[in-house]
Amino acid sequence: MATKNLSELMSWRYATKKMNSSIPVPAEKVEAIIEAVRMAPTSSGLQPFELFVITNNDLRAKIAEAAYGQAQITDGSHLLVFAAWDNYTAERIDEVVQMNVELRGDSPTLRGYYDFLKGNYLSRDPEVNYAHAARQAYIAVGFALLAAAEQEVDSTPMEGFDPAAVDAILGLKERGLRSVVLMPLGFRDQEGDWLLPMAKVRKSRDVMVTELA
Amino acid sequence: MATKNLSELMSWRYATKKMNSSIPVPAEKVEAIIEAVRMAPTSSGLQPFELFVITNNDLRAKIAEAAYGQAQITDGSHLLVFAAWDNYTAERIDEVVQMNVELRGDSPTLRGYYDFLKGNYLSRDPEVNYAHAARQAYIAVGFALLAAAEQEVDSTPMEGFDPAAVDAILGLKERGLRSVVLMPLGFRDQEGDWLLPMAKVRKSRDVMVTELA
Repeated sequence: MATKNLSELMSWRYATKKMNSSIPVPAEKVEAIIEAVRMAPTSSGLQPFELFVITNNDLRAKIAEAAYGQAQITDGSHLLVFAAWDNYTAERIDEVVQMNVELRGDSPTLRGYYDFLKGNYLSRDPEVNYAHAARQAYIAVGFALLAAAEQEVDSTPMEGFDPAAVDAILGLKERGLRSVVLMPLGFRDQEGDWLLPMAKVRKSRDVMVTELA
Repeated sequence: MATKNLSELMSWRYATKKMNSSIPVPAEKVEAIIEAVRMAPTSSGLQPFELFVITNNDLRAKIAEAAYGQAQITDGSHLLVFAAWDNYTAERIDEVVQMNVELRGDSPTLRGYYDFLKGNYLSRDPEVNYAHAARQAYIAVGFALLAAAEQEVDSTPMEGFDPAAVDAILGLKERGLRSVVLMPLGFRDQEGDWLLPMAKVRKSRDVMVTELA
């Protein structure tokens, strides 16, 4: 597999609408995608989300039901679920502090930074903290989409599902998590996917970009 | 410049704390980063944000003031500002429909999809729609960070700023936009950046990932 540049990866990938259900994604390719999620940067390094990697057929069938029956969830071989923290807590932040201390050594600057963060976050409405955590997960979604493309694995980022239902299926509430994005992994059905031959639609640079020189 | 794989890009990049203020980022590298933002996928293809590319020194100095004086904003040569739509509107969605019609042809399915979306989005609280739009911008933040790394350009994603102040400096409110992320671009100061020699801190796979087989 020759290394492709990002431009090639961005052209190759698309939100696959039909997966080939007979070819599972090899484990090492899934690992590369997981690694991209793990390496994605997040605000203050909190990594305030978890990743569920689901191959279980029953679970995927239930989640598909909670997602308008989108078939990629069961036609693909793996389902990624990005689940954001429902709130920031002292314990969660302290775990990150501890990891920093272990890898970089202790320092008053480090402690002060995270104390400042706690002072700021812990008094906020949980919904504000959840919204902030969810945004961080989307950076990792971006990384995962490109990592999948690099592995020549197809992926479909999905928000079209009932988060409360998915949370219940996976027991996320009890773990202080809320599902934000589903991402089936698999291989595109070359003949059966109506979207594959379609032109990629993006706004022009002129529409999206303002230069202030 | 040899093509690097994503793993190498993810290792190379870091949230640069000190930029070398004497070397501007070449225009073609900035263009490659802008292109990654433009190509990033978004929910229903709405691309509900705009990108500001700021080289103007006065503007960057003002924005730095609204961002706790973070020096990368003025030490770098370019400042990207990701600004999300403050709400979904019929006009904004119709522009996307029109672009789809032009590139893929008209169809009842296409029209029906976006009519359904309008029915869903236009009655929601603007804050809910803004929160949704902001999340999409974070996918593009992920793409931009990797595109910068591929160009061997340093970048610092920043949420630590006063959004209302930045919105006022750039006149975003009048344009129906709200600033969500700043991202200075430049080149790392090899000697002056305290973070450069530090180990990258990431949670272990065990902590972040749950497999359900």
